[in-house]
Amino acid sequence: MVNKMISIFKPKKIKDFNPIGLNIYTFNAGFKKKGKDLLLIIFDKTINVCCVYSKTSTPSAPIIWDKKNNKGRVKALVVNSGNANAHTGKDGLKIIDKYVKALTIIIKCKTNEVLVSSTGVIGEKFNPNLIINKFEKLNSKNKNSLLEGAKSIMTTDTFPKISIKNINLDNQSFKIYGIAKGSGMIQPNMGTMLVYIFIECEISKKLMSRLLKNNLDNTFNSITVDSDTSTSDTLMIFSVSSKKINLNKKNFKKLNYKINELMHDLSLQVVKDGEGISKLIRVNVLNARSKKQAKKIAFSIANSPLIKTAVAGEDANWGRVIMAIGKTEENIYQNKIRIMFGNYIVCENGSISKKINIRKLDNYMKNKTIDINVKLNLGKFNHTVYGNDLTFEYLKINSDYRS
Amino acid sequence: MVNKMISIFKPKKIKDFNPIGLNIYTFNAGFKKKGKDLLLIIFDKTINVCCVYSKTSTPSAPIIWDKKNNKGRVKALVVNSGNANAHTGKDGLKIIDKYVKALTIIIKCKTNEVLVSSTGVIGEKFNPNLIINKFEKLNSKNKNSLLEGAKSIMTTDTFPKISIKNINLDNQSFKIYGIAKGSGMIQPNMGTMLVYIFIECEISKKLMSRLLKNNLDNTFNSITVDSDTSTSDTLMIFSVSSKKINLNKKNFKKLNYKINELMHDLSLQVVKDGEGISKLIRVNVLNARSKKQAKKIAFSIANSPLIKTAVAGEDANWGRVIMAIGKTEENIYQNKIRIMFGNYIVCENGSISKKINIRKLDNYMKNKTIDINVKLNLGKFNHTVYGNDLTFEYLKINSDYRS
Repeated sequence: MVNKMISIFKPKKIKDFNPIGLNIYTFNAGFKKKGKDLLLIIFDKTINVCCVYSKTSTPSAPIIWDKKNNKGRVKALVVNSGNANAHTGKDGLKIIDKYVKALTIIIKCKTNEVLVSSTGVIGEKFNPNLIINKFEKLNSKNKNSLLEGAKSIMTTDTFPKISIKNINLDNQSFKIYGIAKGSGMIQPNMGTMLVYIFIECEISKKLMSRLLKNNLDNTFNSITVDSDTSTSDTLMIFSVSSKKINLNKKNFKKLNYKINELMHDLSLQVVKDGEGISKLIRVNVLNARSKKQAKKIAFSIANSPLIKTAVAGEDANWGRVIMAIGKTEENIYQNKIRIMFGNYIVCENGSISKKINIRKLDNYMKNKTIDINVKLNLGKFNHTVYGNDLTFEYLKINSDYRS
Repeated sequence: MVNKMISIFKPKKIKDFNPIGLNIYTFNAGFKKKGKDLLLIIFDKTINVCCVYSKTSTPSAPIIWDKKNNKGRVKALVVNSGNANAHTGKDGLKIIDKYVKALTIIIKCKTNEVLVSSTGVIGEKFNPNLIINKFEKLNSKNKNSLLEGAKSIMTTDTFPKISIKNINLDNQSFKIYGIAKGSGMIQPNMGTMLVYIFIECEISKKLMSRLLKNNLDNTFNSITVDSDTSTSDTLMIFSVSSKKINLNKKNFKKLNYKINELMHDLSLQVVKDGEGISKLIRVNVLNARSKKQAKKIAFSIANSPLIKTAVAGEDANWGRVIMAIGKTEENIYQNKIRIMFGNYIVCENGSISKKINIRKLDNYMKNKTIDINVKLNLGKFNHTVYGNDLTFEYLKINSDYRS
C-alpha cells in the first residue's frame, strides 16, 4: 500500500472524550500490517439500536448477518478494518457466527444482541481467531476513548472522523456523538462505509428510524468521492442512556436538528478525507422541477471525471458543467440555466455571460473549497452534493491499494 | 494544452483512399492553434442521409440546427474541430445560418441540404468567417483524401480513425467506409462525438435507419472512456453512389453484417485512443436476466474509477468488480457470480476460487488488452462494453485542456 498524503482538510485539533454507558476497546488484531484494526464496544446494558445498510446487490457478510439476526436491541458491537469479509460466501457468515458466539459467552448476551461490521479489502480469507484472541483482554485497564475508537476503524483514511454535539431539552443537557470512516469507494447508498452515532437519552427504535429517514438524504446520501458504492455501507444509531426525555414534537424537532448537524459534520469529514482530495467541491443545484431532478444533476456534476480534473487544475471549465447537466437527459430548458462558480457568473440565457470576469474566476479557483452553483429556473427544488477533485494522488492510492 | 502521449494502440499503418462521389476539402481555418480544423465534403449530387444525435438535454447548436433543418437529403457537410459551438444560445444557430447560406450560394443547393457538426471546447464564441473565408478555395486543386478528412476533425485524438470494407452483393462489389473522432467526454448516447459513414450504393433513408438501429447498441453505444457524454455526439450515414443493388433480405443481411464490422472497428478505435489509455478493457457480462441488465452491469464495471485504476496498476482486483456489480442494485444472485480475468478464474460460488493462480493472473494483467468476464448464471443475455484504464495521463490532459 502506498503512503497516503495527509488530507489538507485534516482538522488541526480533534476533540475527544470518554463516553458514559459504553466501554470502548481497540486492538491491533492483525488484519492490517500495522496500527489498530479492531474496535469492540460493550454497552453497560442492552439498548435500542437502529441500522441502515447499503442497497448494493453484493452486500458483505456482516450486512447479511446483521440484517438476519438483529431485532433492534444491542449489547455489543464488533468492527474490524483491513478485511471487509465481503464476497466470502457461506464461510463469511460462519466466521461471524464463530466470533460472535465466543463473545456472547464472555459478556453473557444473546447472539441477536451483537452487531458486526467489517471494512477493508473485498474477497479475502478472514480469520475469526484474530478477533477471538482479543476477547480475553476486555478489562477496565484496556478501555479507550472515543477518538481511539474512531482511529481503529480507519483504512485509507488520513484522519479519524468524530463529531460531538451538546443538546439541551427541557433543561436536561446531554450529548450526541458519532464516529465514521470513509476515504474511497464512496458514493453511499444510505450511509458511508461505517458510521456509528450515539444518543445519550432513551429513545425508541421507531424515533431513531425517523431521525435517520429525515436526515440521511441530505447528509450521507449526498456525498461522493468516486461514485463507487461500497459493499459494506453501514450506519447504526444507538440509544446509550436511559435518561428520560419527553420527546414531544418540539423536543424531537430540536433533536432532529442536532442529529442533522452531526450527520452533516461527519459526512463532510468523509469527503474532506476522500482519497487524493486537493479541493472540496460543493454542487448546489437550485430551482429544479423536483428534488429527484436536483439530486440527479448534482451527482452527475460531482461525479464527472472531466469536471473533477478541471477543478484539480483550477480551471473554471463551465462547459463541462453544461455537459454533465445534459448527460442526465433530464427535462430542462438549456437557455434558462445560470451557472456560477462561487459568486462569479459564467453563463446565463443559454450562453457565456457578458459579465464573466476571467481574472476573478481564476483567482476563485485557487480556493480549497469550490462552489458550483447551477440555477435551473424551472421550479422550487434544491439539492446540494459534496464531492472532491480527481488527482494524481487518487490514482497512486488506487493503482496500488493491495500491494 | 498539454502534449498528449500517442496512444499505444495507434495502428502502425493507416489505410487511405480517394472516394468516388464526394469531394473532400480540409483547411486550417483558425479554430485550433495549429493543424487542420475544418472539413468540407461536397457530394457530386444530392444524396440520401440518415443521422442520429446525442440524447443529451444540453445539445450543441449544430445538433439543434441539423435536427430542425435536414429532411434526409444532403449535398454538403461542414465539420469544424476546436470549437463545439455548444451552449452558444440563439447566436450559435445564427452563426450556422450565416456560413450555411454562404455555402449554398457557392455550391447552389438548398439550406436543408447542408449538414453541420462542430467539436471542441464548449461555450466559446464562434466566428463563422473562419469557415466562410475558406469557401473560395473549394476547387479541384485543393481536394484531399479520406485520411486527410479524418485528420481534420481530430481534437485530443492521437491518431485518425478510419475504416474501409469491401462488400460483394449479386456480383457487384463496392465499398463502405467511415471516419470518426473521439478521445475524451466519451460515453456516447447514440454514436461517438463525430462519426461519418459512407455506403457506395443507392439505399433509402429507411434502410439506413434500420442499419443504425441494428448496430448502434453493440458498437458506439457500448463504449466508454470516462462516462461523460458529449453535447455533440453525432453519427451520419450517407448513400454516396447511385449504384443499384437489390437489397433483398439476403443482401441486406450481408450489408448489415459489414456495417456492423465497420462500426465495431471505428468505435474500438475511439476507445483505443481514449485519453490517457494504457490498457483496453473489454467487459463481457454473460447469462444475465435481460440485455438491459447485462449492459447496465458491464457499464458499471467499465466506468468504475476503482477498477480502472486497478487495471492501470496491473492488479486483478476482482473485489472491486463485485462492488461494481452490486452498486447497480440489479436483481442478481451473489453466490452464482463467476468472474474471470481473461481465462483465469478469480471467484465462483460466492467467494474466492480455490483454483486462483496469482502468478498467472499477475502475468495476465501485463497484457495491453484485459478481458473481465462476468458470468451471472441467471439467464441467456450477454453484453460487451469496451473501456480503458484511468491513468496519470488522463488527469494531465484534463486538468489542463484549455490552457
